[in-house]
Amino acid sequence: MPHISLPEGLPGISSGFAFRPETAKPMRELAHVLLHGPSTLTAGERELIATFVSSKNDCYFCQTSHGAAATAHLGNDSEVVDQVKHDFLQAKVSDKLKALLVIAGQVQEGGKNVSTESVEKARLQGATDLEIHDAVLIAAAFCMYNRYVDGLATWQPRDPAMYASMGEHLATHGYLTPSTQSVLEVAK
Amino acid sequence: MPHISLPEGLPGISSGFAFRPETAKPMRELAHVLLHGPSTLTAGERELIATFVSSKNDCYFCQTSHGAAATAHLGNDSEVVDQVKHDFLQAKVSDKLKALLVIAGQVQEGGKNVSTESVEKARLQGATDLEIHDAVLIAAAFCMYNRYVDGLATWQPRDPAMYASMGEHLATHGYLTPSTQSVLEVAK
Repeated sequence: MPHISLPEGLPGISSGFAFRPETAKPMRELAHVLLHGPSTLTAGERELIATFVSSKNDCYFCQTSHGAAATAHLGNDSEVVDQVKHDFLQAKVSDKLKALLVIAGQVQEGGKNVSTESVEKARLQGATDLEIHDAVLIAAAFCMYNRYVDGLATWQPRDPAMYASMGEHLATHGYLTPSTQSVLEVAK
Repeated sequence: MPHISLPEGLPGISSGFAFRPETAKPMRELAHVLLHGPSTLTAGERELIATFVSSKNDCYFCQTSHGAAATAHLGNDSEVVDQVKHDFLQAKVSDKLKALLVIAGQVQEGGKNVSTESVEKARLQGATDLEIHDAVLIAAAFCMYNRYVDGLATWQPRDPAMYASMGEHLATHGYLTPSTQSVLEVAK
């Protein structure tokens, strides 16, 4: 049961967003710019970073919804998502993304953990300053989203079809508007 | 030295904001709503939560700038800020704020650490659902800001006058526009 009276029937972060629209707006916007806006990283790669960090933070709702968004972006290949969560160095992703995932993992543990060496390695794999910046900020932002979702003890259903539908919606439309319409349709 | 080529002469988060204005906008807006917008918690109380979490995350720039903003809000009483950072249960703050700081500390460690017991204690001290929500989100958001500032290895000068000026600016004007004007004036 959530720690505060959140609107019922809305899963995960959607319930916090509905409870406090003033904070939802910038939180949606930040996710949209980072995960769905113009970037030299593909949307699939960015969702994999978000999924990886959420998995390290043990946030079921975020790792499952962003894992589903990554899956939708990657031609419905959920195997790569599982690989990234469990052993990303062996995953079928580029060496550049692996180097950015190393940095993201360091950010998750604490900002000071990011090493000059890991940044240099990413650069050697072709990562630009902007890509390194965004990897750091996606990881940092998910340290916020994950704590928000779990810190309020939001309702996090276990229905895979709901997450697949949500992931499809997020991959197509991004983060500015609620994906809960699709959620509620599945729940019917 | 910063991990990427950030604009020079801008301290802490200001350099990341100048590097990537698209993400700066929602990040500024979120801080503004949480710390400077309408609330039944005073701005001083909210800055104390931000300072406390930044201190637990060992982020020099954030704990010093928000500590200075809290000091400005609290009639230039920096002793309370020090107390909150080092032993908040003994600090001269309300029992409600102490209970919210317990929750914020749990969020900093991980969202799942927030206990029903600590939420009930906050409620017994008169905390509303919105206040509990905001304490959780301020703590979660500073787990992002702190990691962003340190994860990029931003320049974090040690000049107390700069932070005092920045804190004064933040306490008066909030977070939507850069406080760097005041910073640059001090640096002259």
